[in-house]
Amino acid sequence: MATASAAAYRILDAESLRTWLGDLPELRSRLGARPEKWGVREVGDGNLNLVFLVEGPEGAVCVKQALPYVRAAGPSWPMSPERAFFENAYFTAVAPHVGGMIPEIHHYDPELYCTVMERLSPHVILRHGLIAARRYENAARDIGEYVARTAFFTSDLAVPFERKLGGVALFARNASLVRISVDLIFTDPYVESARNRHTSPQLDATVAELRRDSALKVAAAHFGRKFLTDLQALIHGDLHSGSIMVSQDDTRVIDPEFACYGPIGFDLGAFLGNLLLNWYAQPGRGTAADDREAYRRWILDQARIFWATFRRRFLALWAEHAGGDAFPAAMFRAPEDAAVLASARGAYVDALFADMLGFAGCKMIRRILGFAHVQDLDGIEDADRRGRCESGALAMARTLLIQPEAFRSIDDVIDAVAQAGRHCAHAGRRSAG
Amino acid sequence: MATASAAAYRILDAESLRTWLGDLPELRSRLGARPEKWGVREVGDGNLNLVFLVEGPEGAVCVKQALPYVRAAGPSWPMSPERAFFENAYFTAVAPHVGGMIPEIHHYDPELYCTVMERLSPHVILRHGLIAARRYENAARDIGEYVARTAFFTSDLAVPFERKLGGVALFARNASLVRISVDLIFTDPYVESARNRHTSPQLDATVAELRRDSALKVAAAHFGRKFLTDLQALIHGDLHSGSIMVSQDDTRVIDPEFACYGPIGFDLGAFLGNLLLNWYAQPGRGTAADDREAYRRWILDQARIFWATFRRRFLALWAEHAGGDAFPAAMFRAPEDAAVLASARGAYVDALFADMLGFAGCKMIRRILGFAHVQDLDGIEDADRRGRCESGALAMARTLLIQPEAFRSIDDVIDAVAQAGRHCAHAGRRSAG
Repeated sequence: MATASAAAYRILDAESLRTWLGDLPELRSRLGARPEKWGVREVGDGNLNLVFLVEGPEGAVCVKQALPYVRAAGPSWPMSPERAFFENAYFTAVAPHVGGMIPEIHHYDPELYCTVMERLSPHVILRHGLIAARRYENAARDIGEYVARTAFFTSDLAVPFERKLGGVALFARNASLVRISVDLIFTDPYVESARNRHTSPQLDATVAELRRDSALKVAAAHFGRKFLTDLQALIHGDLHSGSIMVSQDDTRVIDPEFACYGPIGFDLGAFLGNLLLNWYAQPGRGTAADDREAYRRWILDQARIFWATFRRRFLALWAEHAGGDAFPAAMFRAPEDAAVLASARGAYVDALFADMLGFAGCKMIRRILGFAHVQDLDGIEDADRRGRCESGALAMARTLLIQPEAFRSIDDVIDAVAQAGRHCAHAGRRSAG
Repeated sequence: MATASAAAYRILDAESLRTWLGDLPELRSRLGARPEKWGVREVGDGNLNLVFLVEGPEGAVCVKQALPYVRAAGPSWPMSPERAFFENAYFTAVAPHVGGMIPEIHHYDPELYCTVMERLSPHVILRHGLIAARRYENAARDIGEYVARTAFFTSDLAVPFERKLGGVALFARNASLVRISVDLIFTDPYVESARNRHTSPQLDATVAELRRDSALKVAAAHFGRKFLTDLQALIHGDLHSGSIMVSQDDTRVIDPEFACYGPIGFDLGAFLGNLLLNWYAQPGRGTAADDREAYRRWILDQARIFWATFRRRFLALWAEHAGGDAFPAAMFRAPEDAAVLASARGAYVDALFADMLGFAGCKMIRRILGFAHVQDLDGIEDADRRGRCESGALAMARTLLIQPEAFRSIDDVIDAVAQAGRHCAHAGRRSAG
């Protein structure tokens, strides 16, 4: 397969894409019959892939092609385009459980590593919406539901272990993407690496201190080990606000090429951590007319809604669909088992909560000190102002990472963020004033 | 492969084995040139396979063939003989680390699912030696070293995760054997199942109580879930005293067909749990001339030596060979990291200790109430006496399983066993007197 793929693979451009799509009858009819009339635009702004929007008289599609290297780094950082295969495999695996929350897949070409999918409209990338301080009232609840369903239904709590092991074996082959997560999230930010960058010189002292912070490094390494060994469920692997598209009434998850089996808290922490990064970034965008404090309160509400939804829905799914080999239902049929079992399930979800906080901390740090940053912070042009926001985020990330068990509830987290964030908010207002 | 294998596979008997071996030049020369002079005996007493000893004028070999069903149950419980493949894969994987502690493999035939290996002599099965109250002064230390080396060198602490994931994918195919572990260890003993048996009527009330013991069932389910999700290392999967052969100065591990990636505590708990089962069985064999109390103290010493060796050697290997992606060495190069890192490693090993106790409890229970029992207890002919020994073991198993974290050290465990075992010992002596 590798040879055949290598022979057929070519990097698409607007014209070759038009020709290729035109030869696929189903897509030709979906777009409208004359390819030369189609509008084709490359719009990818992620780190890895080409993304085209193709618009015809009858309809539109989105085409995503994996490049044989990391787009954000160029051909000097080669990477197998086979990640498109795993993206497709992930969508296939979770579609029965969250079909309405992922794009409809129209076509996958295993030789071009190319996926043709629903063009989502009028959706925008959630991150862009959050940066612009727009409110999507369903998004946090929807993602809580999404993680609950994808995690539960691919876990040993729901399915016979043989099925899960089959998935583990399949996604074990996605090692080149997992390598990126291992290096960029759990190692690079804590050491000198040519791939790292940070706001300099504003954060220089903070970064030097962090790399001498043995307790923090051990905590990060603990979560890195968990990422590699706690194979609880099929996870998206990169569930930040840039992997979510939203409209006012619809939420979709995209870009699961980092999918693997791993800890559920990794997906939870990606979403929470990126909400918090946005919260810390808002003062950097505040103006005299809008200090963004009201929006920040809304962001923290979304963190609360996200976790509360996940917790409630995960436990409800477990109560209704305990078909797996872990905590097998056959062992707990007696009425007197109910209370003890409910307590064990609560403890399991509490452990996911602690994991969420730790992974959120890891993800916040890597987005400020590592290779791939987030626009929420990077888009703050004034480096002093940006540095202050980033310092606040780093301090909270450290607390989450070192003492996740100190937080008993999401309200504890929100209170701590609001409390610790005052300095940063104040500095932001002063700078804007 | 499946079709070809099915076509070539046949169950060997003494004569067909002689013919087959005689056609393998290397083995023919190893045994001595005239097959008709070879002595061939089937000696298997395990639950799954045929085992032949073949003795020629020049040498001897042991031949193990996987049957297409569970030997202890007969053809009504079919099972793929492919487990022989995984046994061979396990030996291949661990040989670089513990080459001297496994049998030398002379030949593996993938169509007959048949392994020709070193005939170990004068070794006996450790379980048989323990039942006869014989002392093998190196065995516990050797097995502590064995688990430390196999676990460490196949874990994310030692190897790049890509290599581990390759192993995970390979052993994920050993699902039919993992299914046995899941059902027989973590589920059946806690429910009504036609495969279960127990000393009846002596244990009837205890069994009924155990199956109503919600806290115990939840604890067992917790460890069952760990078995399926905590993929720390390649584990033997059945490391009880029947999978170990000993002489006075040599220790070998055999029968790894249950090999899979899983929690390190599973192997640790198998060995500890079976030592404790032997300890609880000794009063059932005591006589007026030898109450076996001195031997019991020796057994508890072996538990101490086993854990102490494992702990010391695992930490030493980690200090010397931290080449993996978990706790990557590059993050901890500063002198001031040493103390915090040592503390984290200690905490990791403490968690293995708690896992060992929980898994030991699971394994003790399944050997008394489940499908496959141990000769240590089953060989006690007087059912009243046997039942008393088993009751004592079950009570301790429950304590280990429900409150593993209540034990801070192996000495705590030994003290608790010695303390709780007095009743059983006393009853045993009375019965013998």
